[in-house]
Amino acid sequence: MSTTDTAADFSTLQLDVPEGVQSISITRDFAATPDKVFRAHIDPELFVKWCGPDSITNTIREWNATTGGNWSYVSSDDRGEYAFFGSFHEVRENERIVQTFTFEGFPDAVNLEILTLTDLSDGRTRLMSTSIFDSLESRDGMVASGMEHGIVEGFNKLDRLLAEA
Amino acid sequence: MSTTDTAADFSTLQLDVPEGVQSISITRDFAATPDKVFRAHIDPELFVKWCGPDSITNTIREWNATTGGNWSYVSSDDRGEYAFFGSFHEVRENERIVQTFTFEGFPDAVNLEILTLTDLSDGRTRLMSTSIFDSLESRDGMVASGMEHGIVEGFNKLDRLLAEA
Repeated sequence: MSTTDTAADFSTLQLDVPEGVQSISITRDFAATPDKVFRAHIDPELFVKWCGPDSITNTIREWNATTGGNWSYVSSDDRGEYAFFGSFHEVRENERIVQTFTFEGFPDAVNLEILTLTDLSDGRTRLMSTSIFDSLESRDGMVASGMEHGIVEGFNKLDRLLAEA
Repeated sequence: MSTTDTAADFSTLQLDVPEGVQSISITRDFAATPDKVFRAHIDPELFVKWCGPDSITNTIREWNATTGGNWSYVSSDDRGEYAFFGSFHEVRENERIVQTFTFEGFPDAVNLEILTLTDLSDGRTRLMSTSIFDSLESRDGMVASGMEHGIVEGFNKLDRLLAEA
């Protein structure tokens, strides 16, 4: 698809799972400017193309990517459907997205995700995302679920999408 | 105003600030059924009457207390105005409210509040609320700000409001 994704292999994803703290932090660089990375997160037509592992297809149910708005989508694969919903607490253009997240399979679990984009001034952007969970058990359950695999594959798709734009 | 608030003095508020964990948990019983306590949290005309310390007056800017909705209000006292905003991640009738919270004076700070109501089956309701902060520093800053004082006074106002209804 593109040869520009060499900087975006598995090794560039930094995943921090601090001991005893109910959060997960991710750092990942992209070969695109902050406005493009931001747009890929808030434009639903772009978002569905890259979010999640390669095996799934996303369908938007609700999407209002503004401060105070909300979102909902369904991911499908061979085994079934997985629905997610949340709110956009804050959408700060090209800089920061704060949102809540619930998988409907665990309706009482919720986490808060704070995503920031930093301009690396050479056409690249550093994405940093911290997810704060309602408990250490929820955090550890998310890690055990293999979420890293979905993030790596999703961000690799995002690399290719950004290279096309 | 009322003599029914004897069960709602300072001593009935349980405030848990666990060491090394970025959260605050509150437990408080009210002499009213869950539907009344719930309504006092989601009806803006009731909410403004009790939320916060005695010294402030609240004015709603936005209020859409449904799952995926948002809220914003301004608290005023002799010293000035303090604006807050957030999203209602989930509003589960008479049971649970999950919302985000930002004080505009610290625009990069955000916390997630999970409030549950339990029917004590004798006309009373147990409110449990856990606020999860974006960092341990934010949590400790909130505790140092004297938030407990505002919660105690607010809940005592809520006692009186519930006794009137």
